[in-house]
Amino acid sequence: MKIIRFNYKKNTLWGLLDGDIVTPLKEEPYKHIKLTKEKISFKNCKLLPPTEPSKIILVGLNYLNHAAELNMPVPKNPIIFLKPVTSLIGNNNFIIYPSSVKRLDYEAELAVIICKKGKNISKKDAHNYIFGYTCLNDITARDLQSQDIQWTRAKSFDTFCAIGPWIETELIPSDIKIQSYLNGKLKQNSSTKEFIFKIDYLVSFISKIMTLLPGDIISTGTPSGVGKMEKGDIIEIKIEGIGTLKNQVV
Amino acid sequence: MKIIRFNYKKNTLWGLLDGDIVTPLKEEPYKHIKLTKEKISFKNCKLLPPTEPSKIILVGLNYLNHAAELNMPVPKNPIIFLKPVTSLIGNNNFIIYPSSVKRLDYEAELAVIICKKGKNISKKDAHNYIFGYTCLNDITARDLQSQDIQWTRAKSFDTFCAIGPWIETELIPSDIKIQSYLNGKLKQNSSTKEFIFKIDYLVSFISKIMTLLPGDIISTGTPSGVGKMEKGDIIEIKIEGIGTLKNQVV
Repeated sequence: MKIIRFNYKKNTLWGLLDGDIVTPLKEEPYKHIKLTKEKISFKNCKLLPPTEPSKIILVGLNYLNHAAELNMPVPKNPIIFLKPVTSLIGNNNFIIYPSSVKRLDYEAELAVIICKKGKNISKKDAHNYIFGYTCLNDITARDLQSQDIQWTRAKSFDTFCAIGPWIETELIPSDIKIQSYLNGKLKQNSSTKEFIFKIDYLVSFISKIMTLLPGDIISTGTPSGVGKMEKGDIIEIKIEGIGTLKNQVV
Repeated sequence: MKIIRFNYKKNTLWGLLDGDIVTPLKEEPYKHIKLTKEKISFKNCKLLPPTEPSKIILVGLNYLNHAAELNMPVPKNPIIFLKPVTSLIGNNNFIIYPSSVKRLDYEAELAVIICKKGKNISKKDAHNYIFGYTCLNDITARDLQSQDIQWTRAKSFDTFCAIGPWIETELIPSDIKIQSYLNGKLKQNSSTKEFIFKIDYLVSFISKIMTLLPGDIISTGTPSGVGKMEKGDIIEIKIEGIGTLKNQVV
């Protein structure tokens, strides 16, 4: 199923997308999908980030080839960092290039959306805490990242966490293609089979640190091929079985 | 004014504390303090973290003497990092020592609570966005901090962000004493006049990165004298003009 969050006639709604038809939901979808009897044409829905997380947890260096291109050692444990919820934008929203930034990079990632509260989750039980998957662009001010050592400032500007277009609840993400396209040109091209740490391990590892809550985002790192964006550029994150997240830099 | 958030007879309330008497508020206090006509004895109130932030932003290395004790260079810009909202605990709640951690440190900090939405706030205008101040203990797994380089894991465990006991709205924080006591013994003893970056600068700097929202926490860094805690220890953060935040490690 494809689950969207959207604005429609000044209301913010959740919906089930099937072809061009959206069926609004009665409530947030993490626990149960409760359909209304309404039908809306998809073209009249303005997409929002398809989750409302309490926190956004990202994993650095989870593809061997990306660690190599940044000259960073392969970590023994997942390296995690957080983005603020104010950095979230949805499909077709603008990425704002901050005036204080000299180099702005895209990073294509597969994001996991959590469906229920969990702490100390075992690897074996991790799938029970996953609602679905979406595309995420971990937008990064590369100049500030190397300047600060800590990654937070470089990755926390408003609009620096693009996600969507929807949550796909039926994906099996063990070997799916993940790509980014800059102005239509292929830039990143990898598969989730290249993960250093698999999704069940990440969910378990992170849940031993912090309690996961419904809607929380765990993003699984980016493959090699990251590069810079300029104002006016169109960046697309395309993940097999999900779809394409598209944003323009302004 | 002292503003508390608390549990009372299974309800979660905001209140104005005056001596031993609490007057519950009609709604969250960031915009206006609207009093009810009720009165409650303070001893019947179970304190909660005195804010509900969308994000918790902390500043590293903001006292010259702490940068020196960690052998870290004095930063040219504030180094920021985030804690997840799931790390919050209030006064008298337990700090849980994770089994995966080998060295657990206290860090006394003055925390700023934001009262309204703001972006690109000027230094001069910063005070208009500050609701008040409270004590914060930035609990840190020092072993994981040096292992990961990135500070997030080391600082994001559940219970690693103790704040309270209340928000003081009338503080002038330019030169106030900040101390920590471990089992009654003075460990950190400094003043906010030792800040590398002042509060108005921090609010302005951070608001140029991310939109600040009512309730958000900006914590201003810790002075020298950080050290480790063991299970059973009582750690108190005492800030002049606010009060004492007390927690036990279990």
